Amino acid sequence: MQPIANRMLNYLQPQMYAKFTMLANQKGCVNLGQGFPNFPSPQMLRDALSEEAQTESLQYTMTSGHPKLLNSASKFFEQQIGCKVNVDKEIMVSSGAQAVLSCVMQGVLNPGDEVILFDPAFDLYRPMIEFQGAKHIGVPIIPKKLNNKQEIIKRYRNGKFQYSQDDDWELDFNYLEKVINKKTKLLLLNSPMNPIGKVFSTEEYNQLADILDKHPQVVVCEDAAYHHITFGKYQPFNYPRCITHPRLKDKTVCVTSAGKMYSATGLRIGFAVGNEEIIKGIKAAQTYHIFCLNPVIQTATARCLDQTIDGKYFQSVKNLYEEQANMLLKGLVDSRLNMNYWVPQGGYFVVTDISEIQIPEKYFNDNGVRLTRDFAFAYYMINEFGVVCIPCSPYYENKALGQNYVRWAFCKTSETIQDAINRLK
Amino acid sequence: MQPIANRMLNYLQPQMYAKFTMLANQKGCVNLGQGFPNFPSPQMLRDALSEEAQTESLQYTMTSGHPKLLNSASKFFEQQIGCKVNVDKEIMVSSGAQAVLSCVMQGVLNPGDEVILFDPAFDLYRPMIEFQGAKHIGVPIIPKKLNNKQEIIKRYRNGKFQYSQDDDWELDFNYLEKVINKKTKLLLLNSPMNPIGKVFSTEEYNQLADILDKHPQVVVCEDAAYHHITFGKYQPFNYPRCITHPRLKDKTVCVTSAGKMYSATGLRIGFAVGNEEIIKGIKAAQTYHIFCLNPVIQTATARCLDQTIDGKYFQSVKNLYEEQANMLLKGLVDSRLNMNYWVPQGGYFVVTDISEIQIPEKYFNDNGVRLTRDFAFAYYMINEFGVVCIPCSPYYENKALGQNYVRWAFCKTSETIQDAINRLK
Ligand SMILES: Cc1ncc(COP(=O)(O)O)c(C=O)c1O
Ligand SMILES: Cc1ncc(COP(=O)(O)O)c(C=O)c1O
Repeated sequence: MQPIANRMLNYLQPQMYAKFTMLANQKGCVNLGQGFPNFPSPQMLRDALSEEAQTESLQYTMTSGHPKLLNSASKFFEQQIGCKVNVDKEIMVSSGAQAVLSCVMQGVLNPGDEVILFDPAFDLYRPMIEFQGAKHIGVPIIPKKLNNKQEIIKRYRNGKFQYSQDDDWELDFNYLEKVINKKTKLLLLNSPMNPIGKVFSTEEYNQLADILDKHPQVVVCEDAAYHHITFGKYQPFNYPRCITHPRLKDKTVCVTSAGKMYSATGLRIGFAVGNEEIIKGIKAAQTYHIFCLNPVIQTATARCLDQTIDGKYFQSVKNLYEEQANMLLKGLVDSRLNMNYWVPQGGYFVVTDISEIQIPEKYFNDNGVRLTRDFAFAYYMINEFGVVCIPCSPYYENKALGQNYVRWAFCKTSETIQDAINRLK
Repeated sequence: MQPIANRMLNYLQPQMYAKFTMLANQKGCVNLGQGFPNFPSPQMLRDALSEEAQTESLQYTMTSGHPKLLNSASKFFEQQIGCKVNVDKEIMVSSGAQAVLSCVMQGVLNPGDEVILFDPAFDLYRPMIEFQGAKHIGVPIIPKKLNNKQEIIKRYRNGKFQYSQDDDWELDFNYLEKVINKKTKLLLLNSPMNPIGKVFSTEEYNQLADILDKHPQVVVCEDAAYHHITFGKYQPFNYPRCITHPRLKDKTVCVTSAGKMYSATGLRIGFAVGNEEIIKGIKAAQTYHIFCLNPVIQTATARCLDQTIDGKYFQSVKNLYEEQANMLLKGLVDSRLNMNYWVPQGGYFVVTDISEIQIPEKYFNDNGVRLTRDFAFAYYMINEFGVVCIPCSPYYENKALGQNYVRWAFCKTSETIQDAINRLK
């Protein structure tokens, strides 16, 4: 007798993030694995929570979100992103960007539908798609070039790596045109991208729009969990995005995360903004799952949005993350590990290529199962360097494509990053 | 082009609770519809939230729940319910009892599976089951007797209605044996029961256990959202229940709600306790939906559980609800509405039978669609009495069975209940 539903049987193990965080704690490693900031959350948020806890109603709120939060978020998005939102119809709040994404899948996908992802794609997407009986298809994004230490260091000036075309990861549009078809219901993309830090360009969106014109049934889901962290020429919030692209916005639902915005991943507040019809389906999914969110965390978030609507706070957040990104990347370039590198354009992470690294054979063996190179490398790092990074093959439909990439989180204090750098020296 | 998934198409309208609450506000009605307390939430909870907001980490916590909350809840359940819980394996926290239930459905049900409900069943169950591609089968629970005003008032002494066998609603075990079969995967019951206030007896559980012995694949889900509100001979927490029944407990997952326990339905904390295998499936569902809960609301709830573990707080809560139940029931008996009545054994609600009431014809007409009697009655109440109650046909597989029942919430202040009583006089 199997009490567990079949759809869950592949997912009973703890996620790799949990496993690697546990290992980090057990072995006293520096944890550059899971993407949560290890510096203090803003006092503004703590105070807002404390005060709202005393005064806000503690009863059920509306399924789509507390009216105060819906209002504040809509104003914020209009001012910072430039997208006008009808508060009653075009926005929903859920329990983190992840729950928003899960509601999108439940609200939009029928069994047998197909979803296009761009690989490497955040590994939580695939199970959410499978749970609806839908199928995911990964279109690879390929690095134009592997940049070795000598090449990447040339672009390091005044404490910053300058982004160049050599850092581009390119979308395979031919592949996309081959796999998109009548059954495609959803195209899910993430910009800035976890793990590779890519920001999609307007030219890429134009090309995408051309292709989608031929497949009008396709809904676009723009996962903008890192929309406040963009580097170089891209401004936070106001960079090329689907929800403001003239030819994409009407078919787009854009997903964002207040937890990421306020460096408080435990806040569990995320937003869906988009087309009224899509939002209707998403709300129905939410009604029969969490029903509604805690009002205190919603009105506290509303206060933070009000207090930061001029964008100044986020300018300093972006500057902080950009510094940490450069610090970590420099450390990885200076390390004794002979890797290849790219300068990220945003997000929480840098990815490196490990194809030239000799990994001791013993790390490939996991109780008789042969591991891919990225996993072997991660265990090698944990055991011989005391640093946790995340293997990237789980982000790929075709695992082999990811076996030479690992992800390092820079949403960490300078002390933590320096500690990791010292261990890798 | 339909962007919305088929499974959602029947559920795009706001729920009836939202609709009736909106009407209540528009028309200045007394709202005895939605089951949320309209008296202040305990200061203990507000203070715990305020303090934890200053000190607790605001980053991701474990998917199964914050270790502090899992510990406090396990201790509370052991002391109050008498069920020993392995903190690592047999308990999970989610975003309200409702999200727990949704995770149970996702974690346990395969497409084509059948779920047995006892009607009238909380109307949120059915969509959650359908979303998994599973089928719900309602086994009716039938009132032994309709008690008119003269009969029920005989049992009113010292401000309290005495429960008698005449208030029983009886489970149709023959019907159950007829519908249970190889495809039955889950039996979902709710005690104390929303809406009818029934508490299942040990004898009923014994009979259920006999039937389930012949169908060992069936998982039992005990929705005990109201386990702290039991009247008469039944003690809060420690009344007959599946999770402590010797022959049922190993196949049971028990669902409870801290929001209901602390009269703060917006808290959004619920628990699943049960068999390790079932919990594994539920955790997998949670991992790919909300991922984890806000740590502040979890540690604040842990504090409340610690502070109330001796049960005294809940004795006074139970007394309060029992008073409100009696007050409302007396008011309904004394009203100018000629209904039939039952004394509830627990929960937030009383149900009355409206079969003898003359409802003006115009309330049956909803834009050309003919409404069932319970809905017509609810609109009649709103428009001519200024009181909101909830029609019960949505709680039934066979809507006709529910068309003469309506539900009145007594989780309201004495002022609110008195106001309703005055309007019905
Ligand atoms: C790309 C991406 N989307 C969504 C999420 C989930 O965000 P939240 O913490 O708001 O659920 C993450 C978190 O790591 C992410 O990296
Ligand atoms: C029987 C029953 N189960 C579950 C719930 C949901 O409880 P929560 O508010 O904790 O999600 C309710 C709420 O009305 C209920 O009546």
